Amino acid sequence: MVATLNRLPQPTSQSVPANRPQAQAKPAAPRREKLAVIDCDIHAAMPNDATLFKYLPTRWQQHHTTFGMRGHVGGAYPRAVPNAARLDSWPPNGVPGGDLDFMRQQLLDEWDLAYGILTPLYGAGGMLNLEYGAALASAINDWQIAEWVEPEPRLRGSILVAYEDGELAAQEIDRVGDNPGFVQVLLVVRTREPLGHRKYWKMYEAAVRHDLPIAIHFGGNGGAPITGAGWPSHYIEDHGGMPQAFQPQVISLVTEGIFELFPTLKIVLIEGGFAWVPPLMWRMDQTWQRLKAEAPRVKRLPSDYVRDHFWITTQPMEEPPQPRYFEQLLTQMNMNDKLMFATDYPHWDFDAPDRALPATLPLEVRRNIMAENARKLYKLD
Amino acid sequence: MVATLNRLPQPTSQSVPANRPQAQAKPAAPRREKLAVIDCDIHAAMPNDATLFKYLPTRWQQHHTTFGMRGHVGGAYPRAVPNAARLDSWPPNGVPGGDLDFMRQQLLDEWDLAYGILTPLYGAGGMLNLEYGAALASAINDWQIAEWVEPEPRLRGSILVAYEDGELAAQEIDRVGDNPGFVQVLLVVRTREPLGHRKYWKMYEAAVRHDLPIAIHFGGNGGAPITGAGWPSHYIEDHGGMPQAFQPQVISLVTEGIFELFPTLKIVLIEGGFAWVPPLMWRMDQTWQRLKAEAPRVKRLPSDYVRDHFWITTQPMEEPPQPRYFEQLLTQMNMNDKLMFATDYPHWDFDAPDRALPATLPLEVRRNIMAENARKLYKLD
Repeated sequence: MVATLNRLPQPTSQSVPANRPQAQAKPAAPRREKLAVIDCDIHAAMPNDATLFKYLPTRWQQHHTTFGMRGHVGGAYPRAVPNAARLDSWPPNGVPGGDLDFMRQQLLDEWDLAYGILTPLYGAGGMLNLEYGAALASAINDWQIAEWVEPEPRLRGSILVAYEDGELAAQEIDRVGDNPGFVQVLLVVRTREPLGHRKYWKMYEAAVRHDLPIAIHFGGNGGAPITGAGWPSHYIEDHGGMPQAFQPQVISLVTEGIFELFPTLKIVLIEGGFAWVPPLMWRMDQTWQRLKAEAPRVKRLPSDYVRDHFWITTQPMEEPPQPRYFEQLLTQMNMNDKLMFATDYPHWDFDAPDRALPATLPLEVRRNIMAENARKLYKLD
Repeated sequence: MVATLNRLPQPTSQSVPANRPQAQAKPAAPRREKLAVIDCDIHAAMPNDATLFKYLPTRWQQHHTTFGMRGHVGGAYPRAVPNAARLDSWPPNGVPGGDLDFMRQQLLDEWDLAYGILTPLYGAGGMLNLEYGAALASAINDWQIAEWVEPEPRLRGSILVAYEDGELAAQEIDRVGDNPGFVQVLLVVRTREPLGHRKYWKMYEAAVRHDLPIAIHFGGNGGAPITGAGWPSHYIEDHGGMPQAFQPQVISLVTEGIFELFPTLKIVLIEGGFAWVPPLMWRMDQTWQRLKAEAPRVKRLPSDYVRDHFWITTQPMEEPPQPRYFEQLLTQMNMNDKLMFATDYPHWDFDAPDRALPATLPLEVRRNIMAENARKLYKLD
C-alpha cells in the first residue's frame, strides 16, 4: 500500500537471512532457441503518494491522507522480502517496480521482452469504502497510461476496478476501456463472494462490451478466513494454499452459468498455478453429471467452459518431481493454447524466461506459451 | 441430525425428480476376480431420540429436548435425497443406516464384506456447546458398541469427539480408546481452525496413546464461509468443492509439524477424493523449499509426510475422462499402499465394490485398495 511504501527499509546485505529466497540470476550459459517472450505479470508500483495525488481528485487525496487505506485483513508477504521483491529489483530511488527506466533495463531489455502486461497490486478493489476504492482505481489507471504505457510501447496496462460493486467497476471499465493501452480488467482472487454472484455481473457486461478479459490475480482478502477450514498460522500455508482460492472462483463462474450469460467473456488466472486444474475439472464434471438440475444455466460439461474461457499464467511454474509428470499435466489439462508465460517481476519468486519451461516440450508448445497465446488474447501487434 | 430425522418424509416414486441420482444396482454380469472387500465408510445412523436417550445422561437429555442441536450453518444435502440416502436404503421402519439387520442384508452380505467401518455423522463435534457435544459423542460411541459392533463381528466403530476442544476430545478417546471395537477417531473436515493448531494437539496425543488413526470425513462447518472466496450459491459447488477443505487441513497438519510432534500419528481422509493430492504435494514441496524458515518443525519434504502419514478412502472414486489419467494419478501419488476402498453406504453417491476400480489395474493393487491396506491400518483379523 502506497501509504507505507516510503517507510519500508532499503534491504541491506545484513538484513538477509541465510535461507531467504534468492532472485534468480541470469545464467551465463548460451540460450536455447530464441523465442519471443511476453510477460503477463509485471507489478508496476506507485512510488509514493505524491505520484498518486497527481491522479487522485482532491476530495480523495484528503480522505487518503486523513483516513488511509482500510480493507479486510488477509494474507501478507513475509517481512524479510520487503515488497515481496527481488533484492536486486530496488531502483536507486523508490520501490521495486516503481521506476520505468530501471524496469526497462532489468526486465524488458535484459530479457528482450516483446511485451509486458502491467498488473499493479494496489488494493484499490479491496477497500471497504467502495467509492474511495473506485477513486484509487481510477488514479492508478490514469497513472499506468501516463507514466508507463505511453512512454514505453512494449507495456500494456490492466484496469483496476472497485470490483466489489459491479456498477462502480462497470463505470471505470466504460471510462477507460477503449484506451488501447489497457488489455484486461484486474481483480484479486480472494473476493468477498465467489465471482459468479450477481453483484459482479455488471462488471462482466462492461468487460464484454469492451472485449476485455477479466484477470484474477493471487492475493486479496474478502473478510473471511482464507481457507474453508479457518485461518492457517503461516505465510507458507497462505502461499502454498493460494490455489484453494482460485478453485472456488472457477467453480462459481462455471456453475452460475456466467459463460452462458456472457459467451465472449474471457478469464485470466494469474499466479495461482495450474496443476490443480485437471483434478478440479474431473470433479466438476463428475458432480455436474449427477446434480446438474440445481444449476440449469450450465449447458455443457464444466470442463468445456474451463477450456474455452480460461487463460492461465505460468508463474509460479509447477515443479513436479518427475519431468514426465509435467508433460502428463499438460496433456490432461489440454489447454496449451491458454497457458501464458509470466515472470511476476519484481517479486521474489520471479520465473526467468529461459528457465521456465522444460526444454523437452515441443518448440511449438513453448513458443505459444512464451508469447503467442498472450499475443492472440491481448491482440498485441 | 437426530432431532429432525423422524420428520423427514419417506421417499416415494412420485417424489423422485427425473434427474435425481440413482443408487447403483448390483449388475447381473459375472464378477471379476473375487477380492476381499473392506468398506471404510459406512454411515450408521441413530434412528430416533429414544435410542439416543438410552445412552445420554439425563442432564443432556433435558438439554437436547429443550434447546436442541445448535451449530454453525454450513453445507447441506439436497432435499430430493432425504438423508442423502439411496432410495433403496430406507429400512421398513426408521432411517437409512439405522437398522443393523437391514444393513447386514443390503451391504455386508450382499457385497460379502470382510469388514465395515462405521462413520456415524451426527454433528456432535460441531456443537457450539462443547460439553453438550461431548455428551452426544459419548452417547453415540456407546451406542455403536452396544448395537452395532458387539452384535455384528464384521463391524468396527469410530470414536466421535468434541474435536473443537482438544481436552474434551482426549477425555473421550481415553474413555473408550482401548475398546477393540473402535479403530479410529472421527472428525469432519470443516473445522473452526486448521487442524494443525495447538488447540487440537491433546486430541492427537490421546490418539497416539491408543494407537488410533484420526479420520477426517467430508462435511461439517466451522462458522466461516466454506471457501477462501466466500459462500458459493449451490450445493453442487459445495459438493464439487469439498477438496478445498481437505487441502488446508493437509497443509496445516504438515506445516505445523504435527508429524514431528507425533511421529506415529496416522490420518485417514474420507470422502474428499484424491486427484488433488499430487498437485498439492508439488506445491507444498516447492513452497517449502523456499520458505521453510517460517516453519522449522518441518524437517522433511512435505510430500514425505503426506506419503507416510495419510491414508485416503476411495469414494467418490475419481473419474478422469481417460482411463490412463487415472493410472497416471496413482503413479504420481505413489500411495497405493494408503488408498482404501469405501462405499459411503447408504448415501446416494454409493460406490459399488465391483465397479469402483478399473479392471486394468494390477490385481495386487486392487487387492490392497479393496481390503488389505485397511486390514493393516485397522489391525483387522
